[in-house]
Amino acid sequence: MRRLAKLYFYYASMNAGKSSNLLQAAFNYGERDMRVSLWTAAIDDRPGFGAISSRIGLSSDAHRFDASTDIEGHVLREHGEEPLACVLVDEAQFLTRDQVWQLARLADKGGIPVLCYGLRTDFQGELFPGSAALLGIADSLVELKSVCKCGRKATMNLRVDEAGRAVKAGAQTEIGGNDRYVALCRKHFSEALGG
Amino acid sequence: MRRLAKLYFYYASMNAGKSSNLLQAAFNYGERDMRVSLWTAAIDDRPGFGAISSRIGLSSDAHRFDASTDIEGHVLREHGEEPLACVLVDEAQFLTRDQVWQLARLADKGGIPVLCYGLRTDFQGELFPGSAALLGIADSLVELKSVCKCGRKATMNLRVDEAGRAVKAGAQTEIGGNDRYVALCRKHFSEALGG
Amino acid sequence: MRRLAKLYFYYASMNAGKSSNLLQAAFNYGERDMRVSLWTAAIDDRPGFGAISSRIGLSSDAHRFDASTDIEGHVLREHGEEPLACVLVDEAQFLTRDQVWQLARLADKGGIPVLCYGLRTDFQGELFPGSAALLGIADSLVELKSVCKCGRKATMNLRVDEAGRAVKAGAQTEIGGNDRYVALCRKHFSEALGG
Amino acid sequence: MRRLAKLYFYYASMNAGKSSNLLQAAFNYGERDMRVSLWTAAIDDRPGFGAISSRIGLSSDAHRFDASTDIEGHVLREHGEEPLACVLVDEAQFLTRDQVWQLARLADKGGIPVLCYGLRTDFQGELFPGSAALLGIADSLVELKSVCKCGRKATMNLRVDEAGRAVKAGAQTEIGGNDRYVALCRKHFSEALGG
Repeated sequence: MRRLAKLYFYYASMNAGKSSNLLQAAFNYGERDMRVSLWTAAIDDRPGFGAISSRIGLSSDAHRFDASTDIEGHVLREHGEEPLACVLVDEAQFLTRDQVWQLARLADKGGIPVLCYGLRTDFQGELFPGSAALLGIADSLVELKSVCKCGRKATMNLRVDEAGRAVKAGAQTEIGGNDRYVALCRKHFSEALGG
Repeated sequence: MRRLAKLYFYYASMNAGKSSNLLQAAFNYGERDMRVSLWTAAIDDRPGFGAISSRIGLSSDAHRFDASTDIEGHVLREHGEEPLACVLVDEAQFLTRDQVWQLARLADKGGIPVLCYGLRTDFQGELFPGSAALLGIADSLVELKSVCKCGRKATMNLRVDEAGRAVKAGAQTEIGGNDRYVALCRKHFSEALGG
Repeated sequence: MRRLAKLYFYYASMNAGKSSNLLQAAFNYGERDMRVSLWTAAIDDRPGFGAISSRIGLSSDAHRFDASTDIEGHVLREHGEEPLACVLVDEAQFLTRDQVWQLARLADKGGIPVLCYGLRTDFQGELFPGSAALLGIADSLVELKSVCKCGRKATMNLRVDEAGRAVKAGAQTEIGGNDRYVALCRKHFSEALGG
Repeated sequence: MRRLAKLYFYYASMNAGKSSNLLQAAFNYGERDMRVSLWTAAIDDRPGFGAISSRIGLSSDAHRFDASTDIEGHVLREHGEEPLACVLVDEAQFLTRDQVWQLARLADKGGIPVLCYGLRTDFQGELFPGSAALLGIADSLVELKSVCKCGRKATMNLRVDEAGRAVKAGAQTEIGGNDRYVALCRKHFSEALGG
C-alpha cells in the first residue's frame, strides 16, 4: 500500500523568501526525524554555490541538478536506502519539462511528496521551462508573496543594469546576481518596460 | 481615483464546471445591477455556438474572440458608454499572449476586474497559449476541482477516439466535442498514455 | 486499504452561489456514475423546503438535518448499501459541533470526502456553530466570492428590516427570507452598523 | 485617496513556522525600506520573552499585547509619526475579538495591511478567541503547513504531559512550553484523545 503524494509548486517573484520557506519545511521534517532530499540548481554562482541559502541567514547543503541530472533515479536510490519523507527543490524554474515529470512520478508512483520552489516568470514576463511545466501539472499551486515599492503584491521581476535602468532584452538567465533584479507589481513592471 | 483591480485565472480540467462558475459570477453581478462584459472563444462548435453554456443547463450570450480580436479596445468602448463592473472570459486557454496582456491592462489601468476561466493543459499535458500567459501573470490562480474515476482530483485531460482509446498525437485543438475528452488524475493520465 | 479523504469547508457570504457550487459538484460526480449523499438544513422555509435550490435555477432533493440528526450513522448505512463517492452538505453553518466531528470521522475513518457549504458569519459578524467548528477542523477552507455594492469582495451579511434599514440585534437565525440580508464588504458592513 | 488594505490570517498548528514566516515578511518590507509594526502576545514565557523568535534561529523585537492593549491607538500614533507599510502580529490566537476588529479598522479605514499569524485550535480542538474572530472576518485565510508523524498534514495540537501522554482537560493556555504540544493530523489527534 502506497500513500498518495502530491507535487507542489510554491511560486513567487525574486526575494519573496522561497529558500527560507523551503528550509523551514526541511526543518519541520527534521524535527520529526523524517529524512528529506534537498535539491538546487547548479546554474547559480552565488556565495554558497551548491547549497541553498536565504537572504535572511539560513542555509543548507543540497544536491545540485542541471539539465542532464536524473533526479528520479537519484531520489529512488536514496529512498531505497532509507525512506524519504519528502523531496524539496529550490530554483525549480530551471528544471526541464522531463525533470518535472520525473518529480511527478516520484509523487504518483513512489508516494513521495515533492515541494518545488521557484520563480514564475523571467525579466520579460515569460515562463521559465520549469515553471511552465510545474504550473501545468503540479497538484497544488501556492503563491509566496512579496511586496512592490508601491505596497501592492510583487509578481514580476524587472532586470536592471548597473545604473538601475530596466533591461528589455537578453538571455533568460544571466549569471551574476540577484541585485540585478527588482520585484515589482505588474503595473510598475509594465511601466518600467515602457508598456 | 481608480480602484485597484485584479486579473484572475480560474483553471480546471474538462467538465469541472468552469462555465457554470462564470455564469454564477455574472448572475451575482446582475443581481446587484452591475454590468459585466462576457466573452467566449469563437473556436467552439458546440450547440449554442457563440454563447456560453454549461452542461448543467445554464447559458448566456457572449462576445466571441478569435486571435485577431481587440478585446481591450472593445471593452474600453463598452466601459466608456456605461461603466463595467467586471469582464468574464470563458475558454480563456484560447487567448493569445497579447490578449492576456490586454486583459491585464484592463485591470491595471482601467481598474476593471477580469475573471478568466479555462483549461490548464491540453491532451498531451502541455499548456495552451492562453493558460501559459495567464499562469504567468494573473494576480490570482484559483483551481476549480473535478473528479477522476478513482476519486482523486482530476487535473489532466485525456483525448480519446471513438472507441474510447487514448489519443497520443494530433492538433492541440480539435473541433468536435467534449465527449472526446476524459478528465483524469495525473497518475491515470500517465498510465493511459503508457507512461 | 482506505483512501485518505478530506473534509472541505466552502464558506461565503449570502448569495455567493454556494448551492450552485454544491449542485455542480454533485453533477460532476453523477456524470461519472458516482453516488453522493446530499444534505441540507431543515431550518429553512424557502420554496423547495427540504431540497437544495439555487437562485440561478438549479435544484435537487436532499436529506434534511436538524440538531438531533445522526448524520454519520445515516451516511454509513447508505455507504454500506452501495459505496458513496462523496457527502455534500448545504447550509453547513447550522451543523452542531458534534455533527461536524461526525463528518470529520466519515472522512478520517470512512474514507469518504465531505464537502460542506455555508455562511461564515451571522448578521452581527459572529460565527455560526457549524462554521466555527468547520473553520477549526476542516482540512481545507475555500472561499466562494461574492461582490459588495462597491465592487469589493463581500464577506459580511447585513440583516435589514422591511424598509431596508440595518438590524443590529435579534436571533442569530430568523426564519423568512434571504431578501432580508445584504452581502457587503467589511467596511460597508461596519458603517451600516454605525462602526 | 486611501489604498484598500487587507486583513490576513495565516493559521497553522504548532511548529509550522509561523514566526519564521512573519519574520521573513518583515525582512521583505525592511529590504524595501518600508516600516512595519511588529506585535506578539505578552502571555508567552519562552526565552526571548517579549520578542518574536523562531525555532529555526530568527528573532526580532516586538511590541507586546495583552487583553487590555489598545493596538489600534498605538499603531495609528506610529503611523502618524512615519507611515507604516504593514502591521504584523504573532501569537494572534490570543487577540480579543475587539482587538481583531481594531486590526480590521486599521486595514479598512487606515489603509494599512495587517498580517496575523496564529494557531487555529487549542489542545481540545476548540478555537481560541483570536482565531475565532480572525477566521470570521479576515479577508484572506492562508494555511501554513506542518507535518504529522504519519506524513499527513498536521492540523491539530495535542497537549502531552511529562511522560508524553495525551492531556484531555485543563486551561486553554498553559504557561510553559511548546515541548508540551505535538502537532498531529486530525485522525491521530482523535485517536490520541480516545475518539
